[in-house]
Amino acid sequence: MSDLPSAIEIHEEGPREGFQFEKKIFPLADRVALVNALSHTGLKQIQVASFVSPKHVPQMADSAEFFAAIEKVPGVKHTGLWLNEKGFRQASAVKNVDLKGTLLFYASDAFALQNNGYSADEMRRRQDDWIQLYDDAGIAISSVYIMTAFGCNLQGEIPIEAVTRNVRWVMDRFGESGRPIPAIYLADTVGWAVPTEIERRVGAVRELAPTARVGLHLHDTRGVGSANFYAALRMGIDLFDSSVAGLGGCPFAGHTHGTAAGNICTEDVVFIAHEMGINTGIDLDALIDAALLAERIIGRPLGGRIMHSGSLKRFRSAAGFQNSA
Amino acid sequence: MSDLPSAIEIHEEGPREGFQFEKKIFPLADRVALVNALSHTGLKQIQVASFVSPKHVPQMADSAEFFAAIEKVPGVKHTGLWLNEKGFRQASAVKNVDLKGTLLFYASDAFALQNNGYSADEMRRRQDDWIQLYDDAGIAISSVYIMTAFGCNLQGEIPIEAVTRNVRWVMDRFGESGRPIPAIYLADTVGWAVPTEIERRVGAVRELAPTARVGLHLHDTRGVGSANFYAALRMGIDLFDSSVAGLGGCPFAGHTHGTAAGNICTEDVVFIAHEMGINTGIDLDALIDAALLAERIIGRPLGGRIMHSGSLKRFRSAAGFQNSA
Repeated sequence: MSDLPSAIEIHEEGPREGFQFEKKIFPLADRVALVNALSHTGLKQIQVASFVSPKHVPQMADSAEFFAAIEKVPGVKHTGLWLNEKGFRQASAVKNVDLKGTLLFYASDAFALQNNGYSADEMRRRQDDWIQLYDDAGIAISSVYIMTAFGCNLQGEIPIEAVTRNVRWVMDRFGESGRPIPAIYLADTVGWAVPTEIERRVGAVRELAPTARVGLHLHDTRGVGSANFYAALRMGIDLFDSSVAGLGGCPFAGHTHGTAAGNICTEDVVFIAHEMGINTGIDLDALIDAALLAERIIGRPLGGRIMHSGSLKRFRSAAGFQNSA
Repeated sequence: MSDLPSAIEIHEEGPREGFQFEKKIFPLADRVALVNALSHTGLKQIQVASFVSPKHVPQMADSAEFFAAIEKVPGVKHTGLWLNEKGFRQASAVKNVDLKGTLLFYASDAFALQNNGYSADEMRRRQDDWIQLYDDAGIAISSVYIMTAFGCNLQGEIPIEAVTRNVRWVMDRFGESGRPIPAIYLADTVGWAVPTEIERRVGAVRELAPTARVGLHLHDTRGVGSANFYAALRMGIDLFDSSVAGLGGCPFAGHTHGTAAGNICTEDVVFIAHEMGINTGIDLDALIDAALLAERIIGRPLGGRIMHSGSLKRFRSAAGFQNSA
């Protein structure tokens, strides 16, 4: 147990992931209410919306209005997602967006073509332009995402080399130039990961980038979410993306309709962390309230467990009234 | 990864857990169809029904007819649950029941009183009578359950000593007399366990009973199911109870109504095991079909993930049609 981190950082992806995955476009006021509720839970980073083609993702057509309407809470970053330079420029012009310099790589060609219109190799080459773009804008590059790092519904098995060639590229550009090395996220975009692959692939990244902070973006598509989270904690990983109530799923990932494709659930992983003595800085009760709000907005039962079963707090506090062992 | 077992044994609890948790009494033909489907998946042990008071658990009033109606499949044990001597005698008189000598202990007084009408200490003392009962019937005692071994909704925190005093009793009765030591199951009856507690409590059992096989009966009430399963695998545990489709939950455990209280989901843990190279002897596709049948019978979406998202098989086989990395 000695490898477990004493504290972890959890970045909330629920609003962007969740509202993008749903076919329906939800009222702006509801979406804003969810972001505002999340902003008062102790979460330090919340991804609000994407700046992507409204033709392909009509749910994100009003991202500028969405950001403009949220409450800014001191200490909370409200981030956006973009898949190309145009998206970044759009985000840069919008009120309340906390710009984070993020590079985007793919381990799957098929998914890269589907999601971004380039092969994985082309996408990697384009990241030199992205670096220039961020440098010109004076924005530090803080994170790197490697999408479909564990497998791909469109392409099948993803060899580890398809992941590590991106890590090598990052170390070439950053490690050798003396630039601060960004956090390297392995994204299990479509829920293929199991604990042994978490260990193998995180291990491979660390071998190539021993000084980089490694993060994980996990989906609970197949019920392995908490096992993968625990496997990562055991490796000392302290940086995770998750979604309140388990919202989410990429609409272009080739999931079967109706699939439970969401991210690992924020309040569930916060619960696990707290029960194991790991600090998150997050108020679990406030987060459960936000999850219940998300469920009321979406209008059907969501995948999160703790929001339905409750944390252990009330059972512990009620225990005084019972006889003791 | 070296501690992972190469094969594990999974005992199915879905029929008994699931039909007992639901308020409705389902048609006998549906319940029989589910057991028969499960009997053709490679599962070697299926708990079909309880022999308990029909006043308290009307869902189990026709257990004798239920057992009599199932198809007997060679190599598959169809077991029953009893909470007292009377229940065992009933089970003994019923066709198709594979009697397993099981002892029953509680780590929580409050839960023991609620579930069994005795304190934890009284229940332990009564196990001498159970041993006599099994001896008289010529039935080997193969397993020991310690219920609420990780925490209790009625009593709160469960000190580790409330678990280990039962293990000591077992080792007194079995280890010293030269009788074969039964498998010792820790049951997370109400979903309090987290991986660090799995490690601590399994570790404590092994210290007192180094030669005993240790099993786990886990519930996924709070989304920690797969993490606990993985933590147990890491400790070399190779004996699990689970429920198809995630069915189940004890009706007397103090859960909030509507809670996702089910066991860890059989097909989800089989998927995880297979993906990590651990043999289960189970046909995952056949098991997913049985889970979908369970969902049709119960008539609402159940908690299992793989039954909704599918295994990776179809994505792997489709991959040949895609471009390669």
